[in-house]
Amino acid sequence: MNSFVIKGDIVFCPYKRQLVAIEDGYVVVRDGIIELPYTELPETAKDLPVHDYTGKLVMPGMVDLHIHAPQYAYRGLGADMELLDWLKHYAFKEEAKYSDLSYAEKAYTIFADALRKSASTRAVVFGTIHREATELLMDKLEKSGIVSLVGKVNMDRNSPDTLCETTESSFRETERFLHKTADRYKNTKPILTPRFVPSCTDELLLRLGWLSEQNDIPVQSHLSENPGEIAWVRELCPDSRFYGEVYDKAGLFGNNANTVMAHCVWSSDEEIALMKERGVYIAHCPASNMNVSSGIAPIRRYLDEGLRVGLGSDIAGGQSESLFTAMVEAMQLSRLYWRHIDPTKKPLSFPEALYMATKGGGAFFGKAGSFERDYEFDAIVIDDSTLPHPQSLTVAQRAERAVWLGADKTGLIAKYVRGTKII
Amino acid sequence: MNSFVIKGDIVFCPYKRQLVAIEDGYVVVRDGIIELPYTELPETAKDLPVHDYTGKLVMPGMVDLHIHAPQYAYRGLGADMELLDWLKHYAFKEEAKYSDLSYAEKAYTIFADALRKSASTRAVVFGTIHREATELLMDKLEKSGIVSLVGKVNMDRNSPDTLCETTESSFRETERFLHKTADRYKNTKPILTPRFVPSCTDELLLRLGWLSEQNDIPVQSHLSENPGEIAWVRELCPDSRFYGEVYDKAGLFGNNANTVMAHCVWSSDEEIALMKERGVYIAHCPASNMNVSSGIAPIRRYLDEGLRVGLGSDIAGGQSESLFTAMVEAMQLSRLYWRHIDPTKKPLSFPEALYMATKGGGAFFGKAGSFERDYEFDAIVIDDSTLPHPQSLTVAQRAERAVWLGADKTGLIAKYVRGTKII
Repeated sequence: MNSFVIKGDIVFCPYKRQLVAIEDGYVVVRDGIIELPYTELPETAKDLPVHDYTGKLVMPGMVDLHIHAPQYAYRGLGADMELLDWLKHYAFKEEAKYSDLSYAEKAYTIFADALRKSASTRAVVFGTIHREATELLMDKLEKSGIVSLVGKVNMDRNSPDTLCETTESSFRETERFLHKTADRYKNTKPILTPRFVPSCTDELLLRLGWLSEQNDIPVQSHLSENPGEIAWVRELCPDSRFYGEVYDKAGLFGNNANTVMAHCVWSSDEEIALMKERGVYIAHCPASNMNVSSGIAPIRRYLDEGLRVGLGSDIAGGQSESLFTAMVEAMQLSRLYWRHIDPTKKPLSFPEALYMATKGGGAFFGKAGSFERDYEFDAIVIDDSTLPHPQSLTVAQRAERAVWLGADKTGLIAKYVRGTKII
Repeated sequence: MNSFVIKGDIVFCPYKRQLVAIEDGYVVVRDGIIELPYTELPETAKDLPVHDYTGKLVMPGMVDLHIHAPQYAYRGLGADMELLDWLKHYAFKEEAKYSDLSYAEKAYTIFADALRKSASTRAVVFGTIHREATELLMDKLEKSGIVSLVGKVNMDRNSPDTLCETTESSFRETERFLHKTADRYKNTKPILTPRFVPSCTDELLLRLGWLSEQNDIPVQSHLSENPGEIAWVRELCPDSRFYGEVYDKAGLFGNNANTVMAHCVWSSDEEIALMKERGVYIAHCPASNMNVSSGIAPIRRYLDEGLRVGLGSDIAGGQSESLFTAMVEAMQLSRLYWRHIDPTKKPLSFPEALYMATKGGGAFFGKAGSFERDYEFDAIVIDDSTLPHPQSLTVAQRAERAVWLGADKTGLIAKYVRGTKII
């Protein structure tokens, strides 16, 4: 059922500096897995049905490495504070509402529907501390058809009463969460989600690290986003040399399982070296770098030094779930970084942005985010004819333009996840 | 015919720090001119037809102070160079095509249609050096229903052969352009448009200044966008103390007529003082600040020091004609400015962004961009129900959210210009 040939103008990035564009090309998919992209339909695939998107752009599905489901409700509001105040005044107040399952039902229906309609085929998702609401979120994401890793958040200190667990209950609820969700869905899996160091005691982090090791469960958290946050971590954890070391000591920094850290705007040399050593993924969230005034993350450095980088929408630090938007913002911020911060750091190219949004983040899920042999077939089909132009353009130009002009909002006509068409 | 009452959720900014939001309010319009906004329908207006947009957002039309019509063709492409190289490799090559009226016809049809469908009701527009193509552009803009000031561009040095005039022909063609277009349209008027100092000799500038004075024709150009550009101007014009003084000496800096200068990213204290003295309008183009790596303009300073600031899309330095997008980018860049450049410069608020996009730029046209007594009625109606949310929001929150989430692309259901409904 999931064996077919896709025909269209094929665009993908197998390497960060290489964009492959095949006009009138084919991707052969067998049981949801890619055989290869071709310029001509191979004889061996002539028995397969053809999904004909001639003249349309076929690109890998986008991978959102960092998105807060409960914050979707207030995206586009409240970008008038720095991180710590913003958390207190907006995020925590909204997240407290998810103790009420009827509110969660309403809000997560909207969220899952938005994600389904977006260009993203995979996402790494924060829930709230509420186990039941987070399971409800997972039900909805599974129904949406996209692939996701979803976390029940842990917070056992420096949090409002409405959003603070005891260490014991946070751990127990997480255990229960893993137990209930680890094998419940095909496309939706749990991920350990300590919110960030300021809201998690050392003991809680250690116990989560143990859970990760015992069950091989991946980890997501925040790292070095804001100078005020970093100073606070220094106070809270005087025995650690840098922020990331706190996670590392607990076994939550790629030492036990796949780990993604959002932001890394102000990481020190030591922290960067350890992320590289541990293979920690960085979720670059350019909108959020701006909206909560954190500053621009040094992505050129991360890419050049061989760290693993993907993109995140960071709803609601970012206002849009569109990874097309995140790509544009990543390119734009890299230009400002070059201009205002470090002229030795060359701006990001379009292939680099597309690589991060697809294969870069996709690697967190395994073989996802590219049209290469043995990759799972996640794809979006974009009709860019809704963006008229007077001159002829190459396929590569059309892809670049579709991203810059937000064609995911106006021209997303099909979406495949693991070989299944969900739009 | 243009007398009616608009009913809806009314939002506008009479002052840069004040947002007025009237739930279920009314704006009374007589002969295209605003009487007043009201919370209740006044007795005296009960004879007028009501345009009922209950539950929808009614905001002033956006004013785009800087947009290049011929560059619309390649927006979303080529954001990989700094200004001067970008002009040579992309802008000039595209603009040369407009000597061919059949190409201009095709491209300007797309452009005018896009502007008509956008949230902008007024625009200050660059054409190319080609008089006939620019007149064709004006025909199309007049038909679109929006109000615009359109310039035939002047370039008589440092330009490719395909896009370089002699001083004499540049002047003569401009004279002819003014003669033909000054009284030809209701909503479309000419504006003098020396491209920028590097492409205009002193003599040409002087003669354009004379035309401006003689005919009271407004002026648009570029100013202090990029450090390389400024250094070049210093070489070309060693007798001027700063870039803006070159225009000033020619009578093109607000000394004879309304003048708008795009960018002003790197203006010196002296230049800023002179802009203030002359009442020069600044077109802040945040997307372009990023895309051609120019850097972030110091808009907080301009606003606090009382300079006149509006927003520009700067197609194709900017990729989108949406002033909603420009507002978001202006707020975002002000946060990075605070973080990376000057922590004494407070980030822009939503009312400030909306003010710049409406009344700030609208003042260039007279009484436009606000719902105040005697203002021309330019308005957009936004249906934000396409952006579902689980909680209740105030009208002011809905307006802020509609802008951040780009509801001009998804929910623009009506548009009025000078009291005439054009969408």
